[in-house]
Amino acid sequence: MQKITALTREQLAVCREELAAAYDKLAARGLALDMSRGKPGPDQLALSAELLDALLSPDDPKTVKGFDVRNYGLPEGIPEARALFGGLLDMPADQVVAGGNSSLNMMFDYVATAYAKGVCGHPAWAGQQVKFLCPVPGYDRHFSLTEFFGIGMIPVKMDENGPDMDEVERLAADPAVKGIWCVPAYSNPTGIVYSDAVVERLAALNAAAPDFRIMWDCAYIVHHLTDTPPALKNLYKAAAAYGKEDQVIMFGSTSKITFAGAGLAALAASPANIADIKKRIAMQTIGPDKVNMLRHVRFFGDADGVRAHMKLHKEILAPKFDLVCQMLEQNLGGKGIASWVCPQGGYFVSVELLPGTAARVVKLVKEAGMVMTGAGATWPYGKDPADSNLRIAPTFPPLDELKAAMELFCVAVELAAVEKLMDG
Amino acid sequence: MQKITALTREQLAVCREELAAAYDKLAARGLALDMSRGKPGPDQLALSAELLDALLSPDDPKTVKGFDVRNYGLPEGIPEARALFGGLLDMPADQVVAGGNSSLNMMFDYVATAYAKGVCGHPAWAGQQVKFLCPVPGYDRHFSLTEFFGIGMIPVKMDENGPDMDEVERLAADPAVKGIWCVPAYSNPTGIVYSDAVVERLAALNAAAPDFRIMWDCAYIVHHLTDTPPALKNLYKAAAAYGKEDQVIMFGSTSKITFAGAGLAALAASPANIADIKKRIAMQTIGPDKVNMLRHVRFFGDADGVRAHMKLHKEILAPKFDLVCQMLEQNLGGKGIASWVCPQGGYFVSVELLPGTAARVVKLVKEAGMVMTGAGATWPYGKDPADSNLRIAPTFPPLDELKAAMELFCVAVELAAVEKLMDG
Repeated sequence: MQKITALTREQLAVCREELAAAYDKLAARGLALDMSRGKPGPDQLALSAELLDALLSPDDPKTVKGFDVRNYGLPEGIPEARALFGGLLDMPADQVVAGGNSSLNMMFDYVATAYAKGVCGHPAWAGQQVKFLCPVPGYDRHFSLTEFFGIGMIPVKMDENGPDMDEVERLAADPAVKGIWCVPAYSNPTGIVYSDAVVERLAALNAAAPDFRIMWDCAYIVHHLTDTPPALKNLYKAAAAYGKEDQVIMFGSTSKITFAGAGLAALAASPANIADIKKRIAMQTIGPDKVNMLRHVRFFGDADGVRAHMKLHKEILAPKFDLVCQMLEQNLGGKGIASWVCPQGGYFVSVELLPGTAARVVKLVKEAGMVMTGAGATWPYGKDPADSNLRIAPTFPPLDELKAAMELFCVAVELAAVEKLMDG
Repeated sequence: MQKITALTREQLAVCREELAAAYDKLAARGLALDMSRGKPGPDQLALSAELLDALLSPDDPKTVKGFDVRNYGLPEGIPEARALFGGLLDMPADQVVAGGNSSLNMMFDYVATAYAKGVCGHPAWAGQQVKFLCPVPGYDRHFSLTEFFGIGMIPVKMDENGPDMDEVERLAADPAVKGIWCVPAYSNPTGIVYSDAVVERLAALNAAAPDFRIMWDCAYIVHHLTDTPPALKNLYKAAAAYGKEDQVIMFGSTSKITFAGAGLAALAASPANIADIKKRIAMQTIGPDKVNMLRHVRFFGDADGVRAHMKLHKEILAPKFDLVCQMLEQNLGGKGIASWVCPQGGYFVSVELLPGTAARVVKLVKEAGMVMTGAGATWPYGKDPADSNLRIAPTFPPLDELKAAMELFCVAVELAAVEKLMDG
């Protein structure tokens, strides 16, 4: 395969004509595709159909210890749900708070409380200059909630092992830097799993701020696409070995395990952090939806039940990711205009394009009937300085639609690259 | 009935001996009663048993317009749930945001956002001196969340028509006063319904702060104990007539309609406020639990379905409230040491005792095996300056336990009064 970047101007002109024709043909199909969000498909949702059923009899709506889940109480969640997430996050159940339906909401609340009250007795962030480290490309909703509180965001480059730890260590020496966002297992969007060495350096991180927090978003921790998934080192335990366990807040949810937005969310942290968080929860709510917790617990049994369930998701999702990777390789491989890593889990494929072409690709596919996550979304403030990263979300569309979407995407990437090389 | 307050010292001494003997006899029964919170009883929870059933078939987990409630989207809630709360709060559905399981959480979020970002473009409350008006006696959780954000609380006396509006108008002239907490229908704990005149004056309130907000907690708006309930004037519509609709934020929930903590919550407000709130929600969460919304909508149909359901609650609760009022009248009536209003709805009976005796009553009943809401809980900072108000929560215990509890309560009230009159 010849690199497009090595073509002459004349060759590029021919290429552009061919690609424009191919694009017009695809656009003429009148597609209406939405590839913008990491939504589970209907076949995945059907795997949890039992949750809609009468899992809880009115004669037995109680926890093992006899607590009626239909009434007030247990603001930290039912013991069974805490144990379930403890199993998933490899943490003791009594260091888990099971919350509502959204781990993002638990992250928001954590930052909101740090802002208004401070964490663990440290001063409130309101009125201070506060910054967060944001590995890029990253999860747009982490960035938008950080921006909401006026917290400065500093991008840190990701590679196949995780964030650039030299940079992280250098930047964390600034006491205004109060945290870092991480999606350690099947990073959103690059799909990589943080290496043991990166986890170890994060665990040992000498942050200047005494209230520095690693926001460890385990959104995809059991979302494997292979039977031999890479292992993620337990950050909390590693940090505890350095006496730095208070720096770690872990989050998880079943949004992409059962129902998106109607599952369970939880966090896990050190005893000091949990005590601090419980104080806020006591002021904030009369408690989480324990009926939904008990439904989930009855459905799964325990963390192993969740892991078994995830194999059913894998059967549905692996062919979609395979298709995406095959089509990327087939259409863009070796052309010098796009790079990506085929993930072993998670919900996304991140594609690094020729600088200056990402927004153009989004525009091209949109005009041909396909919505993608906007260019820049994977960067703080929605601004990708190189305009080069795009996130593909292959889970929702059926295979035939995904194929059509990828055909269009690949042509658009190549067309945008040729345009750029000719005009740039 | 002779007033205890008119007894001679000798008569009081005889009284004290008799009451102490009666108290000892009751204490010897080894009671274990919890009258501390307004929890629905198991027979009330059983009324919503169908919610645990297969209300949603996996073949039809969709809204009327075909939106799949098992997936992401609709951060302001499904249209049917917004319409249901619109019907309950007498507000247009498009001015309703249906949220999670807790209206308290929606109030907390509203204040948290005002604190961090400000409302509707006004400056953030963080760093400003901010005060709230707190009609007393009032709801302890309103006060604790206000205290959490360091907002100053100014008590305003309640009477049978609502808060003292002369005081409210006087205090709202201070631009630091940014809000007032109201439970207008069956006030927690006094059980009164705000009169039309009070609602009208609140609607017309000339608050100095441009971001003043009336936090209108309609927790018990359909929780009638009679078939001819008093009507509550619609504050929003009244305020709109003065162009002051932005001052009103209404809250509601089904916590005491279906399941406590596993129901639905919502807020309703002006278009400007709703737009402002939606901006925050977009940063905060991937959306509410729409599966539970659709369950509730299928269970109730509409707001009239909710009202019909509330008649079943009334059948269970009215005898409990009747018993409480009868026993108060029978044991404490005319003695000059306690006053109360028998509520026509809601969850509580508020008793005003001889000043300086409330904490003693709580201690006495506790030592005899009964937990009540702490003395002072109905006042900001947990401090009732007169130490005179207690809140009775009759809903949870069965009638026989409630009778035992009230026997103990009445003896304790009288004993504490006699002690006070002798020692004070």
